[in-house]
Amino acid sequence: MILIDGKKIAADIRSEIRIQIDEKLKQGGKIPHLAAILVGDDGASETYVNLKMKACIEVGMKSSLIRKPDSITEDELLDEVHALNENRDIDGFIVQVPLPKHISEQKVIEAIDPAKDVDGFHPVNVGRMVQGIESFTPATPTGIMELISRYKIETSGKNCVIIGRSNIVGTPMALMLSRKGYPGNCTVTICHSRTENLKEITKQADILIPALGRPGFLTADMVKEGAVIIDVGTTRVTSTETKSGFRLKGDVAFDEVAEKCSYITPVPGGVGPMTIATLIKNTLKASFGK
Amino acid sequence: MILIDGKKIAADIRSEIRIQIDEKLKQGGKIPHLAAILVGDDGASETYVNLKMKACIEVGMKSSLIRKPDSITEDELLDEVHALNENRDIDGFIVQVPLPKHISEQKVIEAIDPAKDVDGFHPVNVGRMVQGIESFTPATPTGIMELISRYKIETSGKNCVIIGRSNIVGTPMALMLSRKGYPGNCTVTICHSRTENLKEITKQADILIPALGRPGFLTADMVKEGAVIIDVGTTRVTSTETKSGFRLKGDVAFDEVAEKCSYITPVPGGVGPMTIATLIKNTLKASFGK
Repeated sequence: MILIDGKKIAADIRSEIRIQIDEKLKQGGKIPHLAAILVGDDGASETYVNLKMKACIEVGMKSSLIRKPDSITEDELLDEVHALNENRDIDGFIVQVPLPKHISEQKVIEAIDPAKDVDGFHPVNVGRMVQGIESFTPATPTGIMELISRYKIETSGKNCVIIGRSNIVGTPMALMLSRKGYPGNCTVTICHSRTENLKEITKQADILIPALGRPGFLTADMVKEGAVIIDVGTTRVTSTETKSGFRLKGDVAFDEVAEKCSYITPVPGGVGPMTIATLIKNTLKASFGK
Repeated sequence: MILIDGKKIAADIRSEIRIQIDEKLKQGGKIPHLAAILVGDDGASETYVNLKMKACIEVGMKSSLIRKPDSITEDELLDEVHALNENRDIDGFIVQVPLPKHISEQKVIEAIDPAKDVDGFHPVNVGRMVQGIESFTPATPTGIMELISRYKIETSGKNCVIIGRSNIVGTPMALMLSRKGYPGNCTVTICHSRTENLKEITKQADILIPALGRPGFLTADMVKEGAVIIDVGTTRVTSTETKSGFRLKGDVAFDEVAEKCSYITPVPGGVGPMTIATLIKNTLKASFGK
């Protein structure tokens, strides 16, 4: 069994990005600049945004965090988005979700200039991804593609089973792995809460990607000998062993599944770190030619 | 075995549309108007476009066919697209594909105003479909959704296998059938030319949708007893039995498969007629409020 070290790959990517930024600056280019809008004071969102901002600094990018109170109106938030669209120094930006209930996430996402949509959530970028055209693609599935590729895991003709059909993970993952090229050319099955014979299906998977957010859901009896396991689940569970009082748990019952499979990602340290590395990479891409 | 009568359903839809248009006119609305740009003189394209124009007339819509020679430049074609975008009497329009090799189909499609993109090919419409937001959706998979729904075929939790991953049929079909709602909530598997164990997979399908364009490809030994078969294949094969010298053949070996399944679409007269009915329906939708 090979442990897929997402933390190391993400660090490698950050080093590569640092070199590319240095090169860009030498050639008279500008410093890439990522902005994030954070609405309200949700603890998890705060943590994620701070990690993103920190990663920017680490690779030599500029970052700006724009904090807004929960009470911001939809129109006010749309004005912030428009201002970032217009701001020529900002290459890419994200609006951290979830947003308060009185604001339409879709409206806000569609207001972002697709050329600055480094989260890859704007319908134009989603549509281009479906059509196989160069676009910003969502961080988590793109990070997984990178892991598969760096570990040279074979995908062509393989049965890939994805559990979860969300717009930001399961669905784009299915699209990416079913299309032509490498990684890709998988026979992809999308499972979800309505799937009736899940175990029967997961046992046929050469590549198994649980993304449902139920800690320890995937047990050894659901896995074929030699399968590749990419665990997208990252649920905070309370813990007496950590200072913070919680730890992250994946969707995979790691100890029992690890024995059976050929490759597996740990949680934390697997898919998670790749998500931020991809965001940073998208920001660099957004700044090309500037 | 129940034969799914696409020709009848398409006729029903045309009747419904005719009534809606009458109602719209009574309330002072405008006549919906579909335009099509046809480049060159490919026989099949000519036939398809003429069928579309004819269907408009039948339901009481206006239609305009704009013919351009093969020698048209990309810029000239883009100008035509912009003119239709600006033309307030045109509610929706299509650019018949394939286009000559010197013209980028993607560029032309992205130039169409998404609000007039009744083929549902613009990335914004594709992206919205992925995100489950109201949009124009591609005619063939949307027509299939309509057939499934009018025949009240159960889909929730069913194993649906799609053969083919094209941008206009296989991929959007997978997205539509895997999402929440009815028809939908299927466990969807996308197969294609690189799939290694196709027969093993198709035999597990409750709903089987071949869309690969290989006449008679799907044989009885690939089908589970009682499956629902939706045949998207429509290949022109030469025939001495018809006046035109050809006839349409589906991807399914109809006679042997029909005996085994619960529902099946014939070719012609199954999915085909639904495609045009959906285009007309999309055009009516594009004209709402005008």
